[in-house]
Amino acid sequence: MATLKKIGFIGTGIMGAAMAGHLMDAGFEVSVYNRTKSKADELIKKGAKWCGTPAQCSRGQDVIISMVGYPKDVEQIYLGDDGIIVNAKAGAYIIDMTTSSPTLAEKIYNEAKVRDVHAIDAPVTGGDTGAKNATLTIFVGGDEADFKALAPIFNAIGKNIVYLGTAGSGQKAKIANQIALAGSLAGACEAFAYSKSAGLDIDKVFASISTGSAGSKQMTDIVKRGLDGNFDPGFMIKHLAKDLAIGTETSMIYGTSLPILALVLHELRKMESEGHGNEGTQSLLKYYDVK
Amino acid sequence: MATLKKIGFIGTGIMGAAMAGHLMDAGFEVSVYNRTKSKADELIKKGAKWCGTPAQCSRGQDVIISMVGYPKDVEQIYLGDDGIIVNAKAGAYIIDMTTSSPTLAEKIYNEAKVRDVHAIDAPVTGGDTGAKNATLTIFVGGDEADFKALAPIFNAIGKNIVYLGTAGSGQKAKIANQIALAGSLAGACEAFAYSKSAGLDIDKVFASISTGSAGSKQMTDIVKRGLDGNFDPGFMIKHLAKDLAIGTETSMIYGTSLPILALVLHELRKMESEGHGNEGTQSLLKYYDVK
Repeated sequence: MATLKKIGFIGTGIMGAAMAGHLMDAGFEVSVYNRTKSKADELIKKGAKWCGTPAQCSRGQDVIISMVGYPKDVEQIYLGDDGIIVNAKAGAYIIDMTTSSPTLAEKIYNEAKVRDVHAIDAPVTGGDTGAKNATLTIFVGGDEADFKALAPIFNAIGKNIVYLGTAGSGQKAKIANQIALAGSLAGACEAFAYSKSAGLDIDKVFASISTGSAGSKQMTDIVKRGLDGNFDPGFMIKHLAKDLAIGTETSMIYGTSLPILALVLHELRKMESEGHGNEGTQSLLKYYDVK
Repeated sequence: MATLKKIGFIGTGIMGAAMAGHLMDAGFEVSVYNRTKSKADELIKKGAKWCGTPAQCSRGQDVIISMVGYPKDVEQIYLGDDGIIVNAKAGAYIIDMTTSSPTLAEKIYNEAKVRDVHAIDAPVTGGDTGAKNATLTIFVGGDEADFKALAPIFNAIGKNIVYLGTAGSGQKAKIANQIALAGSLAGACEAFAYSKSAGLDIDKVFASISTGSAGSKQMTDIVKRGLDGNFDPGFMIKHLAKDLAIGTETSMIYGTSLPILALVLHELRKMESEGHGNEGTQSLLKYYDVK
């Protein structure tokens, strides 16, 4: 197995920039592309090579990693006429770490395979803090041999790294994560909505319910911020809506019906339509008039 | 303030028996009543005095504690013709620890007050394990002076003891707890339903999602049991349905609309109608065909 040395990293937002930085620290030669160049400045200062297009960022690399916004972005940079797959060298690994559609991940895998390119889907969870501290959970789908070959890369950026199965499985597990998260988030918001309408002191309710059977990461780490009046995004309303839309769409394909998922998606879309899409998910408290 | 010494304990099911036992260990003289006497046998062997009726268990006691099933049971033992309030001595404390209606708690408080009896609502969470280990969370409503006077009793059975405000506030906070719990429970069940329908290995999904942003006490402590094929009740489907029914009813009075709460209640009622009411809440996995 050839040693992996050169990485093209596409998408250097808050998450991507932190991840690319860890890869540089681990000794990889990193080239970067981002739609807004200024967001790559820190990495370039640190020694990353700037590429003007995704195509330039793909040619000659051992591994190409993407961390972009929406499935349509993923589709464009991978499958577009001058995209990653046609520009990647034979034998290269391509890793999409965007939370995206399992169906699209399967399509990328198949298109890549005919060109002898190894595609892996590897979305993450853990947010900006997890990216900064290299403690991300990574959900990996694709060929197991490729997963093993990429261990040095995953180990440089994550902590709980789980191989879930064939192409698309990483995306499926990430969507499952978002569905569970949505239930905890909305349940916590409703608990505080009930409390407020009943005339209780919200801080006392938080003290009484956050550590027992109702306790969740969402309540303690996310909803609490909103209760304290902070609506800055750790994770944006519009991005959770995107993830849950993927969940709704694919659950229909898989033949299952998930009413909590559908309901929370509806609430988030309503929040987006009222101008809260760029706020943190704790803004769901506003849907319930808690804030 | 007179020293509290004699306690009448009504309702010695799994939770109540453990709590009454701790009170005996703390030095209180405990009398017990239970509809099914055999469930009090252990306590009687340990030295508790048996009473044939709730009335007998109320007369002459410094404190009367109840831990029964449904609001209708609470109403009967407190407000019935030969109930607790008419039999309690002037100056006695009465503590309902059943999860019951905030409205009923207010009614009991008012009826008690005219007879110079001090009513406190103090439902708990933490389940049979919390009761056994005296680590329950206790949600207290009523007069703050009464809450303070009862500290030796609460400290003997609980750990996180929070005073929430006037009569009924303990019940309100407990219902808020159940609403948040319901969201986490149903969200986790949907996550595994999605995973199963998508063909994923459920154990691998659990390993990847249970420790991160989707993590919750419900997922780790409750749903996991069901994934492992154990549907024994820690907490029964029918009891969570009862709590959420109280939540739905009172939220209408308070003028708020909580769709997640309504949806999970609907799912639990469906489970009850199909004969799963006495199973643990992890049986909600069956609603989603995960098990």
